[in-house]
Amino acid sequence: MEQIKRTKIVDLLKLDPAGEIVNVKGWVRSKRGNKNVSFIALNDGSTIKNIQIVVDSASFDESVLKPITTGACISVNGALVASQGQGQTMEINASEIQLYGEADPNVYPLQKKGHSLEFLREIAHLRPRTNTFSAVLRVRHAMAYAIHKYFNDRGFFYLHTPIVTASDCEGAGEMFQVTTLDLNAIPKTTEGGVDFANDFFGKATSLTVSGQLEGELGAMALGAIYTFGPTFRAENSNTPRHLAEFWMIEPEVAFNEIVENMDLAEDFLKYLIQYALDNCQDDLAFLNEMWDKELLERLDFVVKNKFIRLPYTEGIKILEEAIAGGHKFEFPVSWGIDLQSEHERYLVEKHFKCPVILTDYPKEIKAFYMKQNDDGKTVRAMDVLFPKIGEIIGGSQREEDYDKLKTRIEEMGIPMKDMWWYLDTRRFGSAPHSGFGLGFERLLLFVTGMGNIRDVIPFPRTPNNAEY
Amino acid sequence: MEQIKRTKIVDLLKLDPAGEIVNVKGWVRSKRGNKNVSFIALNDGSTIKNIQIVVDSASFDESVLKPITTGACISVNGALVASQGQGQTMEINASEIQLYGEADPNVYPLQKKGHSLEFLREIAHLRPRTNTFSAVLRVRHAMAYAIHKYFNDRGFFYLHTPIVTASDCEGAGEMFQVTTLDLNAIPKTTEGGVDFANDFFGKATSLTVSGQLEGELGAMALGAIYTFGPTFRAENSNTPRHLAEFWMIEPEVAFNEIVENMDLAEDFLKYLIQYALDNCQDDLAFLNEMWDKELLERLDFVVKNKFIRLPYTEGIKILEEAIAGGHKFEFPVSWGIDLQSEHERYLVEKHFKCPVILTDYPKEIKAFYMKQNDDGKTVRAMDVLFPKIGEIIGGSQREEDYDKLKTRIEEMGIPMKDMWWYLDTRRFGSAPHSGFGLGFERLLLFVTGMGNIRDVIPFPRTPNNAEY
Repeated sequence: MEQIKRTKIVDLLKLDPAGEIVNVKGWVRSKRGNKNVSFIALNDGSTIKNIQIVVDSASFDESVLKPITTGACISVNGALVASQGQGQTMEINASEIQLYGEADPNVYPLQKKGHSLEFLREIAHLRPRTNTFSAVLRVRHAMAYAIHKYFNDRGFFYLHTPIVTASDCEGAGEMFQVTTLDLNAIPKTTEGGVDFANDFFGKATSLTVSGQLEGELGAMALGAIYTFGPTFRAENSNTPRHLAEFWMIEPEVAFNEIVENMDLAEDFLKYLIQYALDNCQDDLAFLNEMWDKELLERLDFVVKNKFIRLPYTEGIKILEEAIAGGHKFEFPVSWGIDLQSEHERYLVEKHFKCPVILTDYPKEIKAFYMKQNDDGKTVRAMDVLFPKIGEIIGGSQREEDYDKLKTRIEEMGIPMKDMWWYLDTRRFGSAPHSGFGLGFERLLLFVTGMGNIRDVIPFPRTPNNAEY
Repeated sequence: MEQIKRTKIVDLLKLDPAGEIVNVKGWVRSKRGNKNVSFIALNDGSTIKNIQIVVDSASFDESVLKPITTGACISVNGALVASQGQGQTMEINASEIQLYGEADPNVYPLQKKGHSLEFLREIAHLRPRTNTFSAVLRVRHAMAYAIHKYFNDRGFFYLHTPIVTASDCEGAGEMFQVTTLDLNAIPKTTEGGVDFANDFFGKATSLTVSGQLEGELGAMALGAIYTFGPTFRAENSNTPRHLAEFWMIEPEVAFNEIVENMDLAEDFLKYLIQYALDNCQDDLAFLNEMWDKELLERLDFVVKNKFIRLPYTEGIKILEEAIAGGHKFEFPVSWGIDLQSEHERYLVEKHFKCPVILTDYPKEIKAFYMKQNDDGKTVRAMDVLFPKIGEIIGGSQREEDYDKLKTRIEEMGIPMKDMWWYLDTRRFGSAPHSGFGLGFERLLLFVTGMGNIRDVIPFPRTPNNAEY
């Protein structure tokens, strides 16, 4: 076979189909035709679009064509020409074909017919070869890149906060333990507890639940940082909204107060969604058509409308009025409750019909590090609530006063031995600062319109599931 | 104090110092002066450069000025004017000063005098406030961004491979166990082993040592992917080159053979180093002056010279000739050995005086997945060897033949139950493909000139060290 430099399909489709001889490589999505001619839909992952390969049966031996079945990998040389058929503007008239790898139709699980998302979760190692998952993964890439670009362009520094940690301060949920001790023979102290002296780190360690506390150290030195890394929760929750391993983005900015923090969150989310609309048109159009007919409309709405900003206390009033007006919620509503998804979605979807930033939550339901308001009851928290998703961002201005923070740590019974380094940021050159966390997969649920969080991450980790 | 929008120092220094009233916020690096005037060197992390604040003592109460000591955080309004003094082109004549946070000189550990890197490792939560570590962390950010930009611009998709994994196939080193079992009461099976049935994932799991195998799944669907995530080694190595937790970049490309893989690695490294030279001038100039006077020269040399490419067998001959010529190595040299750092550096620094890509290593010293050459002895591995660092990249073309790969897995005693999903890539639509791994901190050692890998990551994890 003649050696011609390969062109990716995404680039081929931008060329003028004037008969130039090109090389394309990829995986067969389907083959149809008759005894005279075959039409192969070839995909190489660079775009959701296939290129049609037209094969004149007279020019090829049957032994070449027979193994070209769905899933097989081939290399094709041929002329790129305008297509007479429907559904594509150009096609390749094959002159040479090389088979790289077969895909036995008797055992290859991804035949042409549609598959349920549940079935595809069972073969997560192959599902990126489907239209849906390749689209989701390309959007995932685009969003990750947009996140880095957004922060880089605005002078934030990417900070790698640690994954293995000896502190359990956030209390954000149950943690996975990390150890090199022999589980068959755990060493014990004389008091009968686990003796971590010979563990790798010489103490008990876990997987991080958040990089925020270390992120604050970075912000108090570099001014503006962001994290983007894996975080972990050992919660035994088998729901479409929970993963044991997921990725989180946490910007932290010195000198930002709560209003600048809200401005940043709103601008950031709008930028990301606009980036998807601008750079993932084909994939979003496919996902809109296939899974969620309101997807594009919803994305468009969010970038075009100013988010409503309102205190938690006002939000509770609206919910109480809704109940008085006859609206039924599953969970009760009163000042002090942690809002459920149904409450958040009522405010966003029913009442305001717009994304909402709720602020100034009761201090009892928020983390110790949030800046205390003068009312003694609330803290400068902010949650961004989205249609369909509920909370997509949670953040706050941080308490910068050493004494107030220390008192709150004591009140909440957090061991001071784990907190000395965090408190040092308030001992030495303290400053107002703020930040927030965005769950990457939550963002992807919103941007792709997918309904289950296991379908927006390549290899989901959930209870009893760590395959691949 | 009048509310004026803050300007970062990096942006201030681009302005015309024509007397405009500006606001700047940051941390005091030093204060000097006399009873009439004080000069404050202020830094906000946006650049290694300070802005000089000139304070006329007559305009401020002593109580305002006294707590402004090294490490304190302040906000300053004043006129941006050309500087008469040496060492800066502009300065701010302070009209208003607000103190955010003090830094008691009796206890704040980062006083003006220089500190050893060893001492700063003990206070890793504060060291980003020093010139050296803020420079390193800004370069680290720039390199991370350049990596994403390089791949995004070339149509690669960022793939998040799993951190918690149930497979231990790479054999790249000892692994950390991840568990939710109560270490005080490990459940046992009837045979006496650990009963993982009630562990979170229902089986033994560990922290990943590499995303490559999952990366190959992505490449065989999306065409070209890269990973960039944390990886872990539970090796008890207390050296300036080892971390238990570090970040790795692993591109994987369908249809690339070994030569394209070498081309990619060389182009990628040159791009990154050129990006640093173009975007981190101030920080690199500081690091060159402070820690490594040959840094800039070395970086420049690498981007300007074509890497030497040569087979392992030729490399061994050169080393044997060196020994015959009287050169002493600590470790012996013969065909079949795994090269030591001293051997790699001899080839790079003494013999070729140029980066070297060594290929076609003996199969016994390389991983099972590398493509076997026809000689039956070597595999299509490639290591990129750099001055000062030794191996900076390791990669290979992968074995795409199902039977050859399966045989090799059996020969090496890898449990087939862990490998079915990996083998599926060769069962269904297999194709030639290649990739490599770049240790992010190795790259940073090279680009920053720092000598200890603990000094190029914000929070190093090493034996007995998981603080913060």
